[in-house]
This record gives sequence, structure tokens and C-alpha cells, in this order.
Amino acid sequence: MSKSTNGCQSCLHYVFDYETTKTLVVPSLRVGLVFRLAQLVVLLYVVGYVCVVQKAYQETDSVISTVTTKVKGFVFTNTSNMEPRFWDVVDSVIPPQGDHSFFVLTNLVETPDQTQSRCPEFPTPSTICVDDCDCIVGHNDPRGNGVQTGLCENYSTTVKTCEVHSWCPLEIDTKLPERALLAAAENFTVLIKNSITYRKFNFHRRNIRPHVNSSYLKSCEFNRKTNPDCPIFRLKHIVSEAGEDFQEMAVKGGILGILIDWSCDLDWWPGKCYPRYTFSRLDSKDPVNNVSPGYNFRFAKYYKTADGQETRTLIKAYGIRFEVIVFGTAGKFAIVPTIVNLGATLAFLSLVPAITDWFMLMFMRRRELYSRHKTSHLTEEQNAESTSMSTTYGTQ
Amino acid sequence: MSKSTNGCQSCLHYVFDYETTKTLVVPSLRVGLVFRLAQLVVLLYVVGYVCVVQKAYQETDSVISTVTTKVKGFVFTNTSNMEPRFWDVVDSVIPPQGDHSFFVLTNLVETPDQTQSRCPEFPTPSTICVDDCDCIVGHNDPRGNGVQTGLCENYSTTVKTCEVHSWCPLEIDTKLPERALLAAAENFTVLIKNSITYRKFNFHRRNIRPHVNSSYLKSCEFNRKTNPDCPIFRLKHIVSEAGEDFQEMAVKGGILGILIDWSCDLDWWPGKCYPRYTFSRLDSKDPVNNVSPGYNFRFAKYYKTADGQETRTLIKAYGIRFEVIVFGTAGKFAIVPTIVNLGATLAFLSLVPAITDWFMLMFMRRRELYSRHKTSHLTEEQNAESTSMSTTYGTQ
Amino acid sequence: MSKSTNGCQSCLHYVFDYETTKTLVVPSLRVGLVFRLAQLVVLLYVVGYVCVVQKAYQETDSVISTVTTKVKGFVFTNTSNMEPRFWDVVDSVIPPQGDHSFFVLTNLVETPDQTQSRCPEFPTPSTICVDDCDCIVGHNDPRGNGVQTGLCENYSTTVKTCEVHSWCPLEIDTKLPERALLAAAENFTVLIKNSITYRKFNFHRRNIRPHVNSSYLKSCEFNRKTNPDCPIFRLKHIVSEAGEDFQEMAVKGGILGILIDWSCDLDWWPGKCYPRYTFSRLDSKDPVNNVSPGYNFRFAKYYKTADGQETRTLIKAYGIRFEVIVFGTAGKFAIVPTIVNLGATLAFLSLVPAITDWFMLMFMRRRELYSRHKTSHLTEEQNAESTSMSTTYGTQ
Repeated sequence: MSKSTNGCQSCLHYVFDYETTKTLVVPSLRVGLVFRLAQLVVLLYVVGYVCVVQKAYQETDSVISTVTTKVKGFVFTNTSNMEPRFWDVVDSVIPPQGDHSFFVLTNLVETPDQTQSRCPEFPTPSTICVDDCDCIVGHNDPRGNGVQTGLCENYSTTVKTCEVHSWCPLEIDTKLPERALLAAAENFTVLIKNSITYRKFNFHRRNIRPHVNSSYLKSCEFNRKTNPDCPIFRLKHIVSEAGEDFQEMAVKGGILGILIDWSCDLDWWPGKCYPRYTFSRLDSKDPVNNVSPGYNFRFAKYYKTADGQETRTLIKAYGIRFEVIVFGTAGKFAIVPTIVNLGATLAFLSLVPAITDWFMLMFMRRRELYSRHKTSHLTEEQNAESTSMSTTYGTQ
Repeated sequence: MSKSTNGCQSCLHYVFDYETTKTLVVPSLRVGLVFRLAQLVVLLYVVGYVCVVQKAYQETDSVISTVTTKVKGFVFTNTSNMEPRFWDVVDSVIPPQGDHSFFVLTNLVETPDQTQSRCPEFPTPSTICVDDCDCIVGHNDPRGNGVQTGLCENYSTTVKTCEVHSWCPLEIDTKLPERALLAAAENFTVLIKNSITYRKFNFHRRNIRPHVNSSYLKSCEFNRKTNPDCPIFRLKHIVSEAGEDFQEMAVKGGILGILIDWSCDLDWWPGKCYPRYTFSRLDSKDPVNNVSPGYNFRFAKYYKTADGQETRTLIKAYGIRFEVIVFGTAGKFAIVPTIVNLGATLAFLSLVPAITDWFMLMFMRRRELYSRHKTSHLTEEQNAESTSMSTTYGTQ
Repeated sequence: MSKSTNGCQSCLHYVFDYETTKTLVVPSLRVGLVFRLAQLVVLLYVVGYVCVVQKAYQETDSVISTVTTKVKGFVFTNTSNMEPRFWDVVDSVIPPQGDHSFFVLTNLVETPDQTQSRCPEFPTPSTICVDDCDCIVGHNDPRGNGVQTGLCENYSTTVKTCEVHSWCPLEIDTKLPERALLAAAENFTVLIKNSITYRKFNFHRRNIRPHVNSSYLKSCEFNRKTNPDCPIFRLKHIVSEAGEDFQEMAVKGGILGILIDWSCDLDWWPGKCYPRYTFSRLDSKDPVNNVSPGYNFRFAKYYKTADGQETRTLIKAYGIRFEVIVFGTAGKFAIVPTIVNLGATLAFLSLVPAITDWFMLMFMRRRELYSRHKTSHLTEEQNAESTSMSTTYGTQ
């Protein structure tokens, strides 16, 4: 055999010789029980908790969703404040496009026929005046309603206030009807169409389920018990499911969430992946630290008179903003999270022998015997080592 | 040497003595091959699948994005139903702000000059009447168009129906033009500006790429092959890329998603992080379980007549809602996921000796020999143990 | 003892005999130091980096949020271009609903009294004509302003252009005021109400903190140093915090992000979970590859004249779109990520003996001795094996 063959052989030996640990079999039931028990605990954790409860073998994806809403209904109001009027959804739902968020008008303060002109301010300590000297031309009080013209005019027979350039007459928003004007909007219904996608899993679904037909959809109304699949909701029902009273909420307004939960396990029950609806009030009712409670905003309809002057009808609209919030996470088996979790489990299983050894060498009656057979010491060198070590470890 | 030095030394021995496993080298090629092969499989999985395919060494972040859109174009309609009319984007795109979602009007039913007044209902089994007794004052049918006044009026020369208080004349939405009125809106173009941020990685980017200059942007039009970087899209092109026909979709309306995918690998190709556009129809065409197919909504323009009466032009608008949906995940190397995945791999590598041992002691010809050298039994104690164990394990 | 008992016993032995590795204790300080040091490094990484810095023991959830905004303020404009006019938020904030995104008008080009009619185009090379032959009936230039009627009309005393059917008079948007018309909108304030939820942890919070009372909210104004908890922001302050100048931005418009960061550690400081506000400009100021810089859109107010003709006032609105972007991740202790990270650590700890062995057998003076005691070779079989192996490994 040549030298090169020898070199190659030793290299092959280096690569392919298998080095295995030498082991000692201890035929002790107690130690064995501890060992198996520890293994069992780790395995139970993995199978039970990680796999079944947490589904850690899955990768997840968040939902992408589209929502359209369509409100139906009308209200006829006939109160002393206002002339009789018929309101349909075109008049009372803003914006009209049927987005995921829509506002339903329930109460309002209307200020018709405002024009760009001048009028005396509301009387407050800073606006009440005696003569024109008290009013500064161009003064611009952020709490006020316009820019002062410098004149002091009669607000009423008894009070004079500074005149302002503004949209006049000024809005008097303190006379909000105590019973919501469009209280009957509680009977409006809203059809919610929602399509979702989990892109990672190429999974598409709609909230209108396949077994539901058109005729059912024309007449149904959502009810958690009797009609859980119907995508048509009565506003009153939504509000009451959120634990609120529509009539109470209608006066000052508020924000109501229609939460659609699409959480799904696509491994086991892709067929059972359907939306779960919940409802909750999103704004705060807390009266303590609450500036401008409820929900309102102002908008105007602009007109032109025959002589070309612009006028507007200002509306301070109180109502309920409904927000459709779609969320959810889908999980599906994937290799990487599975491997990572199995790996972590294996790492814990590798702790088991260490624990068992510790138990065996600490608590067993025959621990001396076990230790003698399991552990060998470098005895003949011990002295030499010990001498050198005493110098090293010593406390001189 | 004093006792305390001894105590200290034994303590130091306890901490710093190194306990290593005793091993047996088995110079068998077969066993070695099995060992190396198993190692190879684990390493290949890690390098190939985890690192290259899944990029599990990266941490990820979701995109934060802003979108503005600007539609351009105009249409001139000249049909028998309506007087000639010029429509620009101000008339036909709702809302005007250029948000991530915009609606382009393609077809409409217009009901001009509606006023708050009274008119007979459309004839249906529940509204046809013979005399006033058939109509109930204040009756409020959710399927109807207003609140009944209690009178029975002539709807036509042959039919009498209950009169309602409503916006009159009532809208007749059955006469929807069969060919979309604003079919020419297919030539509208939309400029989409999209800025994105991955906050975790402090990475910002726009869909208008740096090498693109203003003059190109003024004349270009998106085309997947010839102009993939142009952010100006012809509506017809968008719809056809989504596999739909604009003319067909324009009649009843629909919802179209403009999906912008910003998925990026920031380790290797941050320069290649650019948007990929796809288009798909988001609403359902399924005729079976589809209530109110297509996409439409009603809005009104409010006017005041010279004598101060409010009138409105009601428009039932059919059209295509375009939704720009921006999504994506960026990945970048991070320590924690790398460590976790390496750890899992190491855990699997620690399985390899167990597998090899099993192979060696089960399938090799010399397994007896290997077993004898690898495993030792507590032989002298065996009998004593065995006696006690027979009592324990036995089946008496 | 019967055979079955024996079989059962051997089975029990198989299950409950504990097989432990045989070990060798090496009383070398150096090797021990290397071993403990490597362990220390791994532990430090885990405790320091994984636990403290990365908080990898936590599971995370993304925020679900609702935002309402309410702008306050007014502006009085009195320039030569326009008659004196008073603007409140109803006139200058679009849309009015107080959504998470709102537009504040700062500059505009108004084209009043447009009607559906005919007028000569603006002179450009393609619209200038000599007589009617140069104009094509129905020609529809996407760059133009209407559909050509086929006539050539006087645009001015010197130039003739093709007549178009359009909303006339045409908008002349080149005369944009150089100083923003509603520059004073910088003093508008916006109240932002933001409620958030981390659903996984059932954690709700508002940006109006509990210790803040109504009277404070009525007068405060956000300031990073003096009033960091006040949810009322002056627009000028927002823009300057974003590093921009309101007056400059107001001329051409732009998009400004109000970023609310709700990142929280719910294990240690749930009480410290409050919003952090930052502001940044979202659109590009880059003048190079920027088509239609700034932010503007057109909208119209529709009127009807006494004789029933529709007219409109077209407004090209420049201004700042404010977008409230809420983001954040909450982390809380959870078993699965903890286990996974501990597992990965354990796997790395299991590397430590391998490294120490390698050090011991490569670099120690007594490595021959250690090797002899640690590793045994199948010596008596070696020859036999070696023979067979030379056949296998050899290079014949």
C-alpha cells in the first residue's frame, strides 16, 4: 500500500468513522420512571398545548377585505320645530357611496338662508359692548363666530354686542331637540357585502354564503339565533346588540363598530370559515374627560338666489357613524413553523437525560454505585493535575 | 493545606472540572455514511428550504402607505333619453378628493325636479286601492316609497293607488339604459401616486421611480410589457386586465381592485423593491346568491326655487368603484429569527446520532460487537436489582 | 418464573431501563474555563438580547383603531381677486364628516357661473384654427376641455380657436394666487379622538388620557414639551413639526401625516401605554420626477337658475390633506414564543460541549491523554475492518 493511499484512507476514516457515545444501562425502575415521566410531560406540552391549543405548526396571514354597504329606509318628521318633511337615505346617509363607514343622521339643528353678511355676535363677556370703541375692526376671536367689523349693534332690546362679518344669521346650536328628530331611523336596514381574501393561501370568501339564495336575501334580517347568515341588519338591532339604546344614542350621536371576524383554521375546517359579527360602541360615553361627547359635524347645502347671491342651509348633523371593521387571521400548516416548534421540543427533550442524571446521582440509594460506573476520573493524572491546580485555585 | 482551602478547591473543582462524554469510534463505512447522509439532509433543509426559499432568517414588517389618485377625461352624451350633456371628472367622479377609493359614474337614472309633496305610489298588490278606505294614514311600508296620506288617487287612467308623502315625482329606476350612458368613460385615465414606508427598516419608496422624469409622466400610459413603470392607467385597460369587459361592467356597475404589491427582500435587492400592479374584480358576479348585483348608489343635488321651495335632482348612479389596495411585507436579516431557526436546526442535528445508533444496533452485521462495546450494564448489581424488580414488575 | 413473565419483564426492562452516557471528568482549569465561558456567552445572549432587547418571549398583536377629527376655525379673505368672503370649516374642510383623513382648503381658483354651452378652446398648436375646416365635429382631444363642435370662433381679437361643447366659461387655472388665499387656515385647530384596541389582549385605550379633564381640553393645545397629552393640534404646529412651512405648503398643497404610535409593552408598563405623535410630509417635494406636484382636486357647487338651467361654480381646490395614521404593536408574555426561544437557546447550549471537546483535543498539552481516556476504538476488530475498508476506500 502506497503512502498516498494511506493518507486518503486516514482522511476517509476521519470523515466516515462514526463516533458514538458510550452508555451505561441502569436497570432501576425509579430512574426509568422519572425519565419517561419527564419525556411524557414534554411530549404532552407539544402535542396538547403547542399543536392543539396554539396551532403553532401553522403560518398565518391577515385578511384583505372589501366592504360595500347599502342603507334602506325613510322617515317622515312632523314636529313643531320644523315643517313636515320626508327623509330618505339620500337625505340622511352621508357619504352616499356605501363605503365601509357611513353616517346615519338622527338629529339636527338647521340654520336656513345664511348669507355672507354682518350680524351681532352672541352675547358673551368678551362680545358685549357699549359702543363701537369696545369692538376692534378685524378682531378674530377663535371662540367667536366671525371677524369683527368694529361696530357695536343691538343683539336684543337689552344687550348690544360687537357686529361680525360671517354667515348670518348665526347658528343657534343650543336648541338641540331632546328627542331625536329622526328617531325612526332605527328601522333603517343596512345590507353589508363583504369579500375577503387571504392572499398567502389563495383563499377567497364572501359574507353571503353559497347556500343563501336571492329570495331569502330579499326578506331576511340578521338575528344571532334565527338568521345568523343574513347580511341585512336593522340599525336598532345593531345598537341594542352593542348594549346601547338607539333612542338615547340618537340624540347626541355616537360611533358604532360592526366587527366582522374572519379568523379561520384552513387546515381542518375551511368549510367552516365564515364571518362572525359583533357590535360595540367605539366612542367614549365617559362623561368626565370627554370634550364634545357624541358625534356630530356640520355641512351645508349651497344655493343661489335669483339675483346671484350665494346662500346656504347649514346643518349641524348629529347621528351614528357605523364603521364596518373587518379583521381576522387564517392559519394553515407550513413547514417552517412546524420545524421550529419541533426543534424547540427536541431541545427540551434533550434536557430530560440531564434531569434524570441529576435525580439518579442525588436521590437514589445506590447513587455511589451509579456514579462510579457512569463517571470515570483521570485518576493517574489526578495528582499531577491537582498539584498544578492547587497553585492555580489556591488562596495564597 | 488547610480545610478551607480544601473546601474552596472542591468547590472550584465542582465548577471548573469538565465532564465530557466517553465515546466509541466505530470504523464502519456504512454507519458513517448513514450518519453523514442524515446530517446532509438536515443541513440541506436548512440552507435550501429555510434560508433560500422561506427566508426564515428575516424579520418582517407590513407596509404603511398613502395613495392619491387623479382621474382625467370627459364624456359628451347625446342620447334620446336625455338632452346633450358634457360630463367632466367633477361631474362623474365621486368623491372628488382623490382618495385611495374612487367611483366613476358610467350609467344613471336621473329624476329631476323632485319636491316634498304627494303623489300616488307605484302599483303593487299592496298599494292598489279602490277608495280611501284601503289606505291607512301614516302607514309606512319599508318596501314603499313614502308615508301614506290615506287617500286613494289615480296612478294612471286605469289604476288607482294609495297616495304617499315623499319626494315626488317618484324615481322610476326600471328604465336603466341598456347601453351605459357614459360608456366613453373607459378612456378616462387615472394617475396613482403611492408612497410607502416600512417603519421597522426606515425604508421609504414611491411608485414613481427615480429614473422616471416629468415629461415621460405627462405622456405615458401603463402597459405591463412596454410601460410597466408608468403610474397612469387607462380605465379600460384596468378592467380588461382584470378579465372583465368595461362596456358590460359599466351598465350595472361593479368594484374593481387595483392591487399594488410591495413585497420586498431588503437584504439582497433593495434596489429591486418596486411595486407590482395587479387588477381584479372584487364584487361577485355570481347570479345565484346575489342581491342587488353590480354597484350603485343614489345621491342628489339640492336646489331652491325662486320662491324658496327646496327641489332636488335624484341620481341613481351606476358605475365602477376603483379601490387601490396596497399590501406587502418586507423582510430583512435579524438576529432573533436567525437564532431561532439555527437552534431548531441544531436540535434536529442532535437527532442524527440517535438515528445512526439505532441503525447501527439494529441493521449492522456486527451489531452485537458494537452493542457490547458501546453499552455497559451494571452487571454485578444486576442480580440484586433484578430480584427487587421482579417483585415490582411481576404480575402476581 | 414462567416464560410470559420473562417476556413481560424484558419488555418492562426495555421501557424503564435508563440508559445514561458514560462520562469522563477532566480536572483541567483551562478546559473548564472554556466550557463555562461558552455557556456564559450563550446565556448572556439569551437573557440580554433575546429577553431584554428583543422581548422575544412576547406574542404581539396589531392595533385596531377608530379616529374622529373635528376642525375649528374661520378665515376672512379680502383680496383684489375676489370679493370679501368669510370661510368657516363647513366651507373649507372636505369631507365634513371628521374622518381619519381630511382636507383643509388653503388656495383656490374659482370659476363661477359655468353652464353647459359652447366656447372657443384655449389657444394651443392643435386648437388654433383659421376656419371651420380645421375643426372636426366631435373631435375629442384628451388634453382639451371639451368636444369640438366643428366651428372656428374668435378666442380673442387676434386668435381663432376651435369651439368646444363644455362647461363654459372654461377654467383658467394658471392664475393661482402666489400667496395662499386662505393662508390664515394655519390657525385652525383640530381635535383628534382616537380609540384603540388590542383584541388578543382585550386591551382598550383612548388618546384622551384619564387624568385629563374637560376644562383642560377646552383650552389646551398640543405641544411636545408643555402639553404632550393634549389632543388638540394647531395646523401650523403640525406642519412645522413635520419640517415644512405652512405658508409655502399652502400655495400648491400637499399631504401631511399625523402618525400615532401605540407600541406598548403590556407586561411591564401597561400604564405607560399612551400615544406618541409624530408628523411628516407624505407626498414628494422632489421637483424632478414629479407630475402635478402638491395636492389639488376640483369640485363644484351646482345651482339652478330661475329658468331651470343648471349652472355650477367650479373650484380647483389646493390645500393640505391631513391623514391620521394609527399604528403600533403590543407585546405580552406568551408560552409558545418563550418555549421556542428557550428551545433555540438550549440547542445552542448543546453546542458548548462539542466546542469544548474540540478545544480540549486540539489545543491542550495533555490532549493525547484526554483523547485516550475519552475515546476508545474497536481495536481487536480494527484489522478485520481495516482490511475490508481498504477494499472499499481504496483507489484501485
